[in-house]
Amino acid sequence: MSFKKYKNLSDKINNDLINIYTKGPKTLVETYHYTLSGAGKRIRPLLVIICSKALTNDYSKSFNAALAIEILHNFTLIHDDIMDKDTIRHGKKTVHEKWDNSTAILSGDLLLASSLNLMTTSNYNLDILSAFNKGLIAVCEGQAYDKEFETKDNVSEIEYLEMIEKKTSYLIGMCLEISGMICEVSNENIKNLFNYGINIGRGFQIQDDYLEIMSNQNNMEKSLNSDIMLGKKTYPILLAKQIDEKYINKILNYNDINEATLKLREFIIENKLDQKIKCKIDTFFDNANDSIRSVNFLNDELFEFVKLIKNRKK
Amino acid sequence: MSFKKYKNLSDKINNDLINIYTKGPKTLVETYHYTLSGAGKRIRPLLVIICSKALTNDYSKSFNAALAIEILHNFTLIHDDIMDKDTIRHGKKTVHEKWDNSTAILSGDLLLASSLNLMTTSNYNLDILSAFNKGLIAVCEGQAYDKEFETKDNVSEIEYLEMIEKKTSYLIGMCLEISGMICEVSNENIKNLFNYGINIGRGFQIQDDYLEIMSNQNNMEKSLNSDIMLGKKTYPILLAKQIDEKYINKILNYNDINEATLKLREFIIENKLDQKIKCKIDTFFDNANDSIRSVNFLNDELFEFVKLIKNRKK
Repeated sequence: MSFKKYKNLSDKINNDLINIYTKGPKTLVETYHYTLSGAGKRIRPLLVIICSKALTNDYSKSFNAALAIEILHNFTLIHDDIMDKDTIRHGKKTVHEKWDNSTAILSGDLLLASSLNLMTTSNYNLDILSAFNKGLIAVCEGQAYDKEFETKDNVSEIEYLEMIEKKTSYLIGMCLEISGMICEVSNENIKNLFNYGINIGRGFQIQDDYLEIMSNQNNMEKSLNSDIMLGKKTYPILLAKQIDEKYINKILNYNDINEATLKLREFIIENKLDQKIKCKIDTFFDNANDSIRSVNFLNDELFEFVKLIKNRKK
Repeated sequence: MSFKKYKNLSDKINNDLINIYTKGPKTLVETYHYTLSGAGKRIRPLLVIICSKALTNDYSKSFNAALAIEILHNFTLIHDDIMDKDTIRHGKKTVHEKWDNSTAILSGDLLLASSLNLMTTSNYNLDILSAFNKGLIAVCEGQAYDKEFETKDNVSEIEYLEMIEKKTSYLIGMCLEISGMICEVSNENIKNLFNYGINIGRGFQIQDDYLEIMSNQNNMEKSLNSDIMLGKKTYPILLAKQIDEKYINKILNYNDINEATLKLREFIIENKLDQKIKCKIDTFFDNANDSIRSVNFLNDELFEFVKLIKNRKK
């Protein structure tokens, strides 16, 4: 089984996404279209939709929220790519690389504004809008911690987990939380769905950190190595430092980034950190499943989809 | 009469503003506090509050919206200052100048997120939230037109007016629109209040363009001349070009920005453009007053406040 199973649904998402902002200043219409016609996996909107299907067999009410969350996610990518000086995203140039920083700042702002506009014009209640805004604050704060950690020597595992919880997990938790709210499940199960997503998000981000070091650029379809260059505190680097901080710091200061990556890969494999990392990822996905024992699903689609996320190779 | 009359109210606004975001990543808490403790005139929140007082003698329900709009406005300032490379704002360094571009992008995002969060947690209805988001889209689009015009040779007066309507007027219109919505006046009068603000905003922006060329930096408490350097299509420049485009283009290409400003000032006075500009400003403020003939106000405070805006010297 693969993401291809969801091609029809992804096509529908993609088709609707690019038609949300079509009139306005030429630059903004262009960058909106360019960004939302990227080859993203649409994991977040698919989570919203598949969760609603699993809860009520109906995703019509959730569809706009799914689109809005994907637009919100793309807003964060545009701004993060400026900050991280990333040049490639989903196999093509990032907005600030193709246009310039000013255009990218403004395009991100416009994407955020569009996503909010979609939420407030889709007849969702105040609790749902409030949950959406809390997600927005969390991603801003997560990115701020990520940037602060770049220049901080010692970041603990707890600090790292708090950071990725805000930067990545919160939005994935929010996908399921909002899906649950729209499907009107109990408050307790809304919380359970949120925790399900938080744990998936933790596993997902650690996996992302791992793939960023262990994969090559073509496979990931984004510019790699920027984590190392920027001094990002990713999970594999935290673990490696726990074993030999002096050696890892030496590697991270190499001028040759390819050499640094190779040495880091070697160190990870020699010290069996890859197994440790995989075990951590498994744990979070197991915790995720524990979170939703009390939720009644009509089918297994959500679990199948989350399995795909867990087993992704890029 | 002066803005001093509103000192108590401004103090209350300022005091509440800085206490909205106090917990989070150190950098974001610092930049939030730094930005919202700036010496802004608080024109927008005062408009919301004074309008509500004039409509119902009670501004308690409008107060959070007033704060949220001021935070939204400050979000636009932080991002615009990056794009326009402005180094001084309200007499102190801009965020990107004191910290860096990444911090400023993220700080702007966080301000926007805070303002939205305040709106959605203040028990306002969906129409009010939707009006707020439409204002956000308008300011993004206005800024995009402003940037597009920098590299466009011929910008007509109509194009200029459309640009400032989105960039500046819309938010001022929204202050009065939302104040009217919260005070539950009729839909027709909500529209009238919005148009009142749109016209005030037009006059306000032309005045700003004028002051930017005719005042010195100390008086304005922000870095001037960036309009000229960036090739901004401001109202005085549009009028001057209508008289002698070749000469004005020559001035705008001077390497010495002070010399360019002096020459432009001379040209404006010699050709009596200052009178023409003041007449245009008057017309918009008159149109503003025409817009609200059918609105019943309990007092003249709003008119008095708008007079102060019209007669400001910085």
